Amino acid sequence: MKAVFDPLQKRYHARRFVSNGAWQPSRETPERADILLSALEDLGFPVETPPDSGQAAIEAVHDPRYLTFLQTIVARWQRIPEAPEEVVPNLHPVFRQGETIPGYPASAVGQVGYHVMDGAAPITGDTWISAYASAQSAIHAANLVLQGEEAAYALCRPPGHHASADLAGGFCFLNNTAIAAERLRSGFERVAILDVDVHHGNGTQQIFYTRDDVLTVSIHADPLRFYPFFWGYQDEGGANAGRRFNFNIPLPRGTSDKDYLRALDTALDRIADFGTDALVLALGLDAHEDDPFRGLALTTQGFGRVAGHIAALEHPTVIVQEGGYVSDALGANLRSALEGFMKSSG
Amino acid sequence: MKAVFDPLQKRYHARRFVSNGAWQPSRETPERADILLSALEDLGFPVETPPDSGQAAIEAVHDPRYLTFLQTIVARWQRIPEAPEEVVPNLHPVFRQGETIPGYPASAVGQVGYHVMDGAAPITGDTWISAYASAQSAIHAANLVLQGEEAAYALCRPPGHHASADLAGGFCFLNNTAIAAERLRSGFERVAILDVDVHHGNGTQQIFYTRDDVLTVSIHADPLRFYPFFWGYQDEGGANAGRRFNFNIPLPRGTSDKDYLRALDTALDRIADFGTDALVLALGLDAHEDDPFRGLALTTQGFGRVAGHIAALEHPTVIVQEGGYVSDALGANLRSALEGFMKSSG
Repeated sequence: MKAVFDPLQKRYHARRFVSNGAWQPSRETPERADILLSALEDLGFPVETPPDSGQAAIEAVHDPRYLTFLQTIVARWQRIPEAPEEVVPNLHPVFRQGETIPGYPASAVGQVGYHVMDGAAPITGDTWISAYASAQSAIHAANLVLQGEEAAYALCRPPGHHASADLAGGFCFLNNTAIAAERLRSGFERVAILDVDVHHGNGTQQIFYTRDDVLTVSIHADPLRFYPFFWGYQDEGGANAGRRFNFNIPLPRGTSDKDYLRALDTALDRIADFGTDALVLALGLDAHEDDPFRGLALTTQGFGRVAGHIAALEHPTVIVQEGGYVSDALGANLRSALEGFMKSSG
Repeated sequence: MKAVFDPLQKRYHARRFVSNGAWQPSRETPERADILLSALEDLGFPVETPPDSGQAAIEAVHDPRYLTFLQTIVARWQRIPEAPEEVVPNLHPVFRQGETIPGYPASAVGQVGYHVMDGAAPITGDTWISAYASAQSAIHAANLVLQGEEAAYALCRPPGHHASADLAGGFCFLNNTAIAAERLRSGFERVAILDVDVHHGNGTQQIFYTRDDVLTVSIHADPLRFYPFFWGYQDEGGANAGRRFNFNIPLPRGTSDKDYLRALDTALDRIADFGTDALVLALGLDAHEDDPFRGLALTTQGFGRVAGHIAALEHPTVIVQEGGYVSDALGANLRSALEGFMKSSG
């Protein structure tokens, strides 16, 4: 299987983020990419640097105003007296159904609140360059599949599945998974996304929530007490044309292999029913029992079985890296997943 | 004119709040109450301590789940390792029109994000007791007017106009102005709210946005570059039955007496057209030229003229204190406003 990664993706390095009202050391570090790259090397996968395909495939998913914001906010933020180095929001256009639609302010602080949903997506001077390169990796992997590869792996870092059309959040800026899925649509009628990250893929859900040509399925720790808290519930089934084309499977904290695989079967049934032509696997590795977020408790072998079941669908598949944080098991989890996928896709 | 204040309102004292991504010393301090009380003394106004009227008048405006949250969150927050003393949000149910309606999480951090819209409403162990007492002052002032007083002044601190039915924000927890207006509705058919705080009264607007029995009018610094950023624009006119019963007048930064009074005339015309039976004046004093927020530039004499024009409507009026921060002019501004009101209401 070909893998895709651009060294520019390592430039972004926010040292800290805001969680529970306090600055915490960042978990979404460049070191993650090194660990995952070294797993690819162990597997003997060739790693391609993606060409620059430009911004069109990104604009197919993201709001132009948001893209401008990501590219320009740091310089404007730095003019604020006493502002910290990292751009983080402190006010938000929270509103409830049926109330005033929030306006779009001109001020830097106002725009940060408008476009960043939490304290876990600190923007620095390197964010855009790395997020853009990460998206290019997803685009190139999708192009490889469009050109006939059975599967391709995009080592996307920073990750993307919490970013919606015009919102950053949860370490995510550009939704690599959504960008890959939209790209696949140029060659396939019905594209399914299966998100196995331990956190619900709320950004991906939002992007496709009203569409019936892209099915979004997410298996994740129950958001009732787990990030992203406000989304990922079972009753979120899609809206308008997208009704019944979004499917969430929240699992109790600490769920391990056996029950996870049962949930996966349900997800795969949905994907089969959809008449899927091509798949994007949003491969978070943070559902592992040793991941610092401690949401679910998959074993390393479990990832191999999960990926094997998915590969058995025999759909052309773009595998997009999502979360999965530094632990002794991170590299082994990627190896297990990709080996499991290769074995079954025979 | 009778004034109402409960010393319990001074208990709440958050030392700091989050602004521009950093902790800043709080501006909404108990000292504000002392300055305003001393202005009342200079005026010779009797100050009554409100009786405890219970929670019904508060529940008429606020969501029960939100009230429970305000009363219980501190104990739950303190169990989070390394959380700061003050409860502040770091993630939010931001969503756009037509997308997934956010779910209600069980976790403390999730609920803080759900119910607190910005970093400027830090909750401490004393927040509820002071916010509740502040609301009781508003209720009692409304009761005095219902009992036949021409006008009554509630020294509400903490203030309220940024708090919506289930959201704290901008130093506000319970919307004293909305609570007073709702209370007045028990004796008057058509109640108008005129908010002259330098910041748009977004919480008040939200509470009455779909109603035609309470007119909401706000004159404030243009939110394009001023808190609350996302609301207060001219095109927010109300929705459903409330259509055309919300009226915003954003003014350019630095607007002074002459242009302010012209805007006020427009506001008063609307209030006359509405067939107003009773008025709540949400009296922020932060539109003054020396206020630390530097939004508008009213003079101390200007406040007297503004209040005089409002009193000339001769409506039964509850005056509810909103913002206005510590400067050498704060006490003089309250004196000027209340004297101006008394002179014209004669």
